Amino acid sequence: MAQFKKVAIIGVGLIGGSIGLAIKKRGLAREVVGVFRRESTLKRALKCRAVDKATMLIKCGVDGADLIIVTSPVHSIPKIIKMAAKYAKKGAIITDAGSTKSWIVSSVERDLARDHKIHFVGSHPMAGSEHTGVEFARADLFEKAPCIVTSRAATDRASLKRVKKFWSSLGAIVKVMSPARHDKSVSLISHLPHIVAFGLAGSVPLRELQYAAEGFKDTTRVASSDPELWADIFLTNKREILKAGRLFERYYKDILKAISKGDHKRTVNFLKKAKSKRDALIYGKESH
Amino acid sequence: MAQFKKVAIIGVGLIGGSIGLAIKKRGLAREVVGVFRRESTLKRALKCRAVDKATMLIKCGVDGADLIIVTSPVHSIPKIIKMAAKYAKKGAIITDAGSTKSWIVSSVERDLARDHKIHFVGSHPMAGSEHTGVEFARADLFEKAPCIVTSRAATDRASLKRVKKFWSSLGAIVKVMSPARHDKSVSLISHLPHIVAFGLAGSVPLRELQYAAEGFKDTTRVASSDPELWADIFLTNKREILKAGRLFERYYKDILKAISKGDHKRTVNFLKKAKSKRDALIYGKESH
Repeated sequence: MAQFKKVAIIGVGLIGGSIGLAIKKRGLAREVVGVFRRESTLKRALKCRAVDKATMLIKCGVDGADLIIVTSPVHSIPKIIKMAAKYAKKGAIITDAGSTKSWIVSSVERDLARDHKIHFVGSHPMAGSEHTGVEFARADLFEKAPCIVTSRAATDRASLKRVKKFWSSLGAIVKVMSPARHDKSVSLISHLPHIVAFGLAGSVPLRELQYAAEGFKDTTRVASSDPELWADIFLTNKREILKAGRLFERYYKDILKAISKGDHKRTVNFLKKAKSKRDALIYGKESH
Repeated sequence: MAQFKKVAIIGVGLIGGSIGLAIKKRGLAREVVGVFRRESTLKRALKCRAVDKATMLIKCGVDGADLIIVTSPVHSIPKIIKMAAKYAKKGAIITDAGSTKSWIVSSVERDLARDHKIHFVGSHPMAGSEHTGVEFARADLFEKAPCIVTSRAATDRASLKRVKKFWSSLGAIVKVMSPARHDKSVSLISHLPHIVAFGLAGSVPLRELQYAAEGFKDTTRVASSDPELWADIFLTNKREILKAGRLFERYYKDILKAISKGDHKRTVNFLKKAKSKRDALIYGKESH
């Protein structure tokens, strides 16, 4: 059943395109309009039917929309929301899909403080891949994927409820938390793995890579992600990332220290503890 | 066409079992005999037809074999080869599948120095997964996988040629290099990614893992590997691993430093360089 009359998606790439496809597949809106910055992307999005209609003007896109989803790169989100709010109808809900939340939510709340006709709720669907671009969009991208929705004192309860329901309808497993809690969590489970993967891919000499097998390929998969997008994410979640980085460094160095001392038992113990956590994540229980 | 009359595989797990299945599928030997330490593994190997015959006695297993492949954990390989050589027929070739080579090759050469009837050639098929055990064995495990075969002054040329041909027949892409060169390469492309993955899985608090998505899962996949096996590998390639570790640390810290300074351009540059290498590995060219 349609939850919204008109949904506007601003910045239609892998995430925005997948949202469009998923809304249409599940009939969650009567109309999905995409707002684009480049004509080439607009054409590709229409070709793969990610949106019903397409425009390059925010004003036209958000006009009459009851849900506006901003899926552009992190640094542009507050700016775009500010603009969208200007043309949005009274009572419209705005959400986003940005990978950092404190910076976005506080910027947006500051901008919209005097504007009581618009409700903003921060979202972060934790899906995607190392690919970017609407041509990689998939209607099932959010199925079983975690999606964090942020809540603060200023968050409108009814809008929060509708945004939660929206992501659930897309198949996501929704968790509500504060922007600060979100940023701490993702610094550990998403941003840190990216930095480690970029660090690994960057440090190994190119001539050695010809012998690389599946282990190296998987461990560095996310290092094929978009550098601009990720620099953006890292720089807007600096404090938590530096804390997460120190946590990793300590464990990593402990392993190397045990190896350098030739301490078999200690080395095995560090690896066992790591394996049990990773197995818990995959198989749903802590193994020993 | 059969390259060998009888092949003996000592220590039949994922790797040994896959070798057995691949030999049989391609008809590379008239008979494949597995040598086991545990009766339960012996039964499982026979059940999945990884070997034609099975025994728990090295003496019986290697008797009359023209190729003996030792696929047991690294620390046990020199010891087992020494024992196998005692019962092997004149002119038999012994190889292994150990993940470190200098330590194994020098131990074996020392042990076999006065024994001119046996030829040892070190091998390292770079295939496998985070799983261990013969039930995960696959006849196609080595297809398109790199396999390093080691060569030293003492290596018998004819045996080297036969071992190379053997791995090629299993579908592997064979490279010949010295044990020292091998250990340097794998410290970077295999051992380092494992340490980084173990470090990452070990450092993130368990309660945060509930939100982990594909990025975290892939980056830590190899941290689900066997701790005993990998401690073994790390401790027998200590020097190279510590060097590789320092290389990674430098790049990783450079990224974090750029982030902590809020330097967008420098952050993007580090990520770009890393991405271009990873893309080169996957797509066969360096992208920019």
